[in-house]
Amino acid sequence: MTGQGALRFALVGHGFMGAAHSQALRVAPAFFDLPLAPVMATLVGRDVAATRAAAERWGWESTASDWRDAVDDPDIDVIDICSPGSTHVDIAVAALEAGKHVLCEKPLANTVAEAERMASAAAAAAERGVFAMVGFSYRRVPAVTLARDIVAAGRIGEVRQVRAQYLQDWLIDETDPMTWRLDKAVAGSGALGDIGAHAVDAAQFVTGRRLTDVSGTLHTFVTERPLVDETVVTSGLGGVAGSERGRVTVDDAAWFTARLEGGAIASVEASRFATGRKNAFRLEVSGSRGAVAFDLERPNELEVLEIDGPESGFRRVLVTEPQHPYVDAWWPAGHGLGWEHAFTHQLRDLVVALAAGAQPAPSFADGLQVQRVLAAVEASDAADSVWLPV
Amino acid sequence: MTGQGALRFALVGHGFMGAAHSQALRVAPAFFDLPLAPVMATLVGRDVAATRAAAERWGWESTASDWRDAVDDPDIDVIDICSPGSTHVDIAVAALEAGKHVLCEKPLANTVAEAERMASAAAAAAERGVFAMVGFSYRRVPAVTLARDIVAAGRIGEVRQVRAQYLQDWLIDETDPMTWRLDKAVAGSGALGDIGAHAVDAAQFVTGRRLTDVSGTLHTFVTERPLVDETVVTSGLGGVAGSERGRVTVDDAAWFTARLEGGAIASVEASRFATGRKNAFRLEVSGSRGAVAFDLERPNELEVLEIDGPESGFRRVLVTEPQHPYVDAWWPAGHGLGWEHAFTHQLRDLVVALAAGAQPAPSFADGLQVQRVLAAVEASDAADSVWLPV
Amino acid sequence: MTGQGALRFALVGHGFMGAAHSQALRVAPAFFDLPLAPVMATLVGRDVAATRAAAERWGWESTASDWRDAVDDPDIDVIDICSPGSTHVDIAVAALEAGKHVLCEKPLANTVAEAERMASAAAAAAERGVFAMVGFSYRRVPAVTLARDIVAAGRIGEVRQVRAQYLQDWLIDETDPMTWRLDKAVAGSGALGDIGAHAVDAAQFVTGRRLTDVSGTLHTFVTERPLVDETVVTSGLGGVAGSERGRVTVDDAAWFTARLEGGAIASVEASRFATGRKNAFRLEVSGSRGAVAFDLERPNELEVLEIDGPESGFRRVLVTEPQHPYVDAWWPAGHGLGWEHAFTHQLRDLVVALAAGAQPAPSFADGLQVQRVLAAVEASDAADSVWLPV
Amino acid sequence: MTGQGALRFALVGHGFMGAAHSQALRVAPAFFDLPLAPVMATLVGRDVAATRAAAERWGWESTASDWRDAVDDPDIDVIDICSPGSTHVDIAVAALEAGKHVLCEKPLANTVAEAERMASAAAAAAERGVFAMVGFSYRRVPAVTLARDIVAAGRIGEVRQVRAQYLQDWLIDETDPMTWRLDKAVAGSGALGDIGAHAVDAAQFVTGRRLTDVSGTLHTFVTERPLVDETVVTSGLGGVAGSERGRVTVDDAAWFTARLEGGAIASVEASRFATGRKNAFRLEVSGSRGAVAFDLERPNELEVLEIDGPESGFRRVLVTEPQHPYVDAWWPAGHGLGWEHAFTHQLRDLVVALAAGAQPAPSFADGLQVQRVLAAVEASDAADSVWLPV
Repeated sequence: MTGQGALRFALVGHGFMGAAHSQALRVAPAFFDLPLAPVMATLVGRDVAATRAAAERWGWESTASDWRDAVDDPDIDVIDICSPGSTHVDIAVAALEAGKHVLCEKPLANTVAEAERMASAAAAAAERGVFAMVGFSYRRVPAVTLARDIVAAGRIGEVRQVRAQYLQDWLIDETDPMTWRLDKAVAGSGALGDIGAHAVDAAQFVTGRRLTDVSGTLHTFVTERPLVDETVVTSGLGGVAGSERGRVTVDDAAWFTARLEGGAIASVEASRFATGRKNAFRLEVSGSRGAVAFDLERPNELEVLEIDGPESGFRRVLVTEPQHPYVDAWWPAGHGLGWEHAFTHQLRDLVVALAAGAQPAPSFADGLQVQRVLAAVEASDAADSVWLPV
Repeated sequence: MTGQGALRFALVGHGFMGAAHSQALRVAPAFFDLPLAPVMATLVGRDVAATRAAAERWGWESTASDWRDAVDDPDIDVIDICSPGSTHVDIAVAALEAGKHVLCEKPLANTVAEAERMASAAAAAAERGVFAMVGFSYRRVPAVTLARDIVAAGRIGEVRQVRAQYLQDWLIDETDPMTWRLDKAVAGSGALGDIGAHAVDAAQFVTGRRLTDVSGTLHTFVTERPLVDETVVTSGLGGVAGSERGRVTVDDAAWFTARLEGGAIASVEASRFATGRKNAFRLEVSGSRGAVAFDLERPNELEVLEIDGPESGFRRVLVTEPQHPYVDAWWPAGHGLGWEHAFTHQLRDLVVALAAGAQPAPSFADGLQVQRVLAAVEASDAADSVWLPV
Repeated sequence: MTGQGALRFALVGHGFMGAAHSQALRVAPAFFDLPLAPVMATLVGRDVAATRAAAERWGWESTASDWRDAVDDPDIDVIDICSPGSTHVDIAVAALEAGKHVLCEKPLANTVAEAERMASAAAAAAERGVFAMVGFSYRRVPAVTLARDIVAAGRIGEVRQVRAQYLQDWLIDETDPMTWRLDKAVAGSGALGDIGAHAVDAAQFVTGRRLTDVSGTLHTFVTERPLVDETVVTSGLGGVAGSERGRVTVDDAAWFTARLEGGAIASVEASRFATGRKNAFRLEVSGSRGAVAFDLERPNELEVLEIDGPESGFRRVLVTEPQHPYVDAWWPAGHGLGWEHAFTHQLRDLVVALAAGAQPAPSFADGLQVQRVLAAVEASDAADSVWLPV
Repeated sequence: MTGQGALRFALVGHGFMGAAHSQALRVAPAFFDLPLAPVMATLVGRDVAATRAAAERWGWESTASDWRDAVDDPDIDVIDICSPGSTHVDIAVAALEAGKHVLCEKPLANTVAEAERMASAAAAAAERGVFAMVGFSYRRVPAVTLARDIVAAGRIGEVRQVRAQYLQDWLIDETDPMTWRLDKAVAGSGALGDIGAHAVDAAQFVTGRRLTDVSGTLHTFVTERPLVDETVVTSGLGGVAGSERGRVTVDDAAWFTARLEGGAIASVEASRFATGRKNAFRLEVSGSRGAVAFDLERPNELEVLEIDGPESGFRRVLVTEPQHPYVDAWWPAGHGLGWEHAFTHQLRDLVVALAAGAQPAPSFADGLQVQRVLAAVEASDAADSVWLPV
């Protein structure tokens, strides 16, 4: 990378997602030929001590306690937003207006109105060569990208059905506390926005078709939980239950049926109550001549069916061959990648696009469209599950 | 079975289902201790030559070309109905009124009105010790029965979610002809009634809870097909495409969300367009402390989860141990059964119930209730997928 | 089958294998077009009451307490031997000399010397149009036959490696009693002869190549067990432990490496101590351009690999299509068969061969060759595992 | 890590393994609390330009073209050896004598004599507080460590059988060229030393028992291949075939049976000709009350069996819970790790041990013992596969 220019990042948020993005920044240059060298410049977090500790551990040059400092910093090129959904709009719009490229975690925002403001700011910025990208990282799992390539090449024929399930079970214990992810004011929605958003983006990405209409249902299985005891400090996604109780204001699970451009039908489930399923994002696309099927619990595998006589059947393809997307940068065949490298690939694609002055995908407009799908599902649920256009 | 009484059967229909029921009659006495000896007395079919050939091959004592002859025959104890759905009501009602026990293939009828007449006749007959049973055979797959036992024993805790998919792909080729199964007038419905009915019954059976409300969608992917060339005789489910074309009047796939008694939610898909899936009836029940999962493509396995610390996970149980339902009549552990023996077990249970003068399960009332679920799905689909009570 | 001739069977043995053979005789005529009608004439067993009970349950016309009566009976055409290995030679030789066709369960005999006598008698009988077959039933599992067809067609290229494992676990409890299967005098050998014999036959059948040299090891993990309490009557493979103890004289597990004609190498394991594996007969053949893999715990599936670019992978083929071996006689695609129908297919092939006056396969010569492989493994084990020719 | 001391590494070799070790050094400090900070000081390689390019990409401070420079450098604390097996002995012995800790890739050396020298040097160095470790990284796959923990806790009872297979297929194309890995002078052995060594170490690690005696067979399927065209530069494991041909001098596959301390038996296969298997290192340990089974192609899963009634079965455990080994440093449950992080964990354990002045495991003595197993297999193969002590 001798002589290459740099791309200085500020990352807002030092939780789980901040760790994943930091890892991508740390690792991508060692494996991919990047046209610009990403620099881990500033880590932003309100808790000064915690932010400094994370910055030191993760290798950030400096810290800030207010994202506005990073937005105002002339040495920052990219603002990477990993803070809760309710904060996305202000940071992203300010950053874009300040001429910073933006990478924003999904879902784009907590409401369509916020997402529209963001997409509008991104469109304006793009006119000036400043670009925004939303972090639907699972597109960059090699098996998912390969699924897209196979479908796009017509190898499964005409797309007819999509089956998408994103199944987790981390809420099944009703004595677990009500963290911020169960509070609509902060999180925007529950399973729908958190993991259903991934399902929507991936279904659209792999099929190359948008969801146009939905009929949906949301449900909260455990409507009241212990409040988090704020006097106990914890790490990770959790928290310790206190003695008071609060009302869960987001969905525990969401189901919807959707029409896609071109006449296909998708069924989607997102659940945090799928007992025994830890991170089972499953996507199956049925075409007129074949199918592809993926399960994030086995991220290095893609099942591929191309109908060809009586010995047809789903092939288990280990997506670790050098010809497969992103793989030639890594290890020999059969040596699988982990969850984190979807972020590494995302960063690689972002840097390549920015270096080329091109719009990275998925754009904020793409993120807004996913947001509209989620909003339509919520509206359908509120309207007795009637079909509504996105 | 020395000295035991006999139970003389007449079977109406000599297609695929007639073969399965005949096999059950032939095999059950050799493996189970039956209190009455089933006798393969009369095979009924309109095509005299074909019926005679089938009777000889399958071991029936005699044949008849009109089901009324069997109903009128004083030597017949049980009428076993394997003819198309449109014929069920007349045969079943006449048989019950004539004092014959009835085993009727699913779905019970093509309409709720017909099913109501049948359930009414069955209720009246039961007063006189004459019983009717509907053939939801998959209850008798040992793994499904075991799933029910595990759920009923509380081993998975409170039931919260049901995922049911019945996936086949035999219609994906749009040049395949329009057989009677695609004609609403004869078949009643498409994937919904044919395979969705199994999903509904099994979901209710395993959970012990009824579906009370549904929001559903039906879809026909291929709306026009070649008509069958009636001049070409074929066997099996198929037929040869002629040059004329006709309109497909049933659904190719159905999706619905349902509420169950007690607050659980089920999502159900029935599809004949799930490319690469041949007979994948999958049922997963998620409870507060565990789960069970089944796939008919691996019928001798049940995945069982009972949460117990960090090494929890779905156990692959080979349901071939002598302690498992029905299994001690068969082979040593690890020697699996095939699809057909759900019918053998069904027959065994029917004979045991009749010998005891007891109502076999599932009753026509149970079959009617399934019919009402299917009708509610159709009505919901017609009403823009609003939720409707069953 | 009107007008067809009959083929009258006498079956010796009324245990588990007798049940399986009876089921084949009962079922085959209903599904296959047989050129001769098999008749269940005489069931032979030393225990008169038990034999009569079994005959009545299974549908045999008559019983006998001495196999010689069946051999002497001019109305018997086929002697079907399902009694312990130590009895095979006398029955088979007498039957063949009396002009009866013979179907004999595997392994052919307890010693090579016995097997040689049997093969010799069979060769002599064949000159007179009287034929003998050994019951390596797993050849007739459709997925195994399909594997053979695929290999024979050259679809996996040159055969290089065979991996065969036959894994069971029914002996892992060291308090279980010493049944006859653990007594070398009766059973001949342990895992090697019982299940290793299947592995040898299937490996040879699928590859079309014979094992020529072996290096093997036998081991007995539990060398002493409670003797069976003969005062307690049980059914099945088991028995109740008494208070006295005896020495286990057969192997609990066997491992061997073998050279095949043409230069391939096979590794074989047969174990009754593979904890958690119930009937996992696994066979994988690796060729220069592809591979096939089978597991008897999922008998309706064959994994097929044909290398074709970076998306190669093992296809899971449901061997239930009408084009697959034996399948068109049965159910629609996706409706799997159980363990028992390997015997049904075996019977079908036997009847077809006998009707044509042709030698059925596998012959006693084939059975003898398998016996020689087993003997060579035992001899190699006794000689510190040196390589020995078969 | 403020205030912590540093541990300066020099890494010899810049191929595939150098990349993996560099990634471990880069990543470990961001996820684990390390008592000493690893510093990527010097990358050593004979090709100056290539070494400099790798150093820049991977983040090494400086480069050297001779490993002796690193050994002589007073600022280097650890020599990390990732060069071919033939170079291990000289580098390791010199480094240890110079007071450097050593991490050496497996197999420890190309011959037992070399390994003995290394173990001897390591024993002497340990007296002076200088430690050596051999890089059997698969011990540090969380699922493998968990398997060890489960076995060590007695949860599967007494260990009886081990099934180990390491299956790859990268040599099946006989037109592929003869790289250095097929040259005994450089590589020492073929599949046996390269992947069989992993199988031996992991089998011993998980069971806690050493292999004491072996009977083995080696085989080369393709004995002659095109020589590499040295005029064509390539990356990765490969090379381009030239027009001349050479003799393959290592094994393509190895099979052996082994006795373990305590009476268990292991069967081991290592093959580069297992068509369709890319990196299938499978290890199954059968105990008297349970079993564990692992497959490196699904590295985040462990199958666990603990016998407990008729619903026993292998549980699929996703080894991604915070309670599982190494996992709490990483992502939430269900977010799997990739192949590379076995090296990250290895580095973490090395640093922890060195900081504590303790011997890290596996030691060079452990590596020597594995070497002796491999040598005994070779000797057995040469002696007609007789059993030989290790």
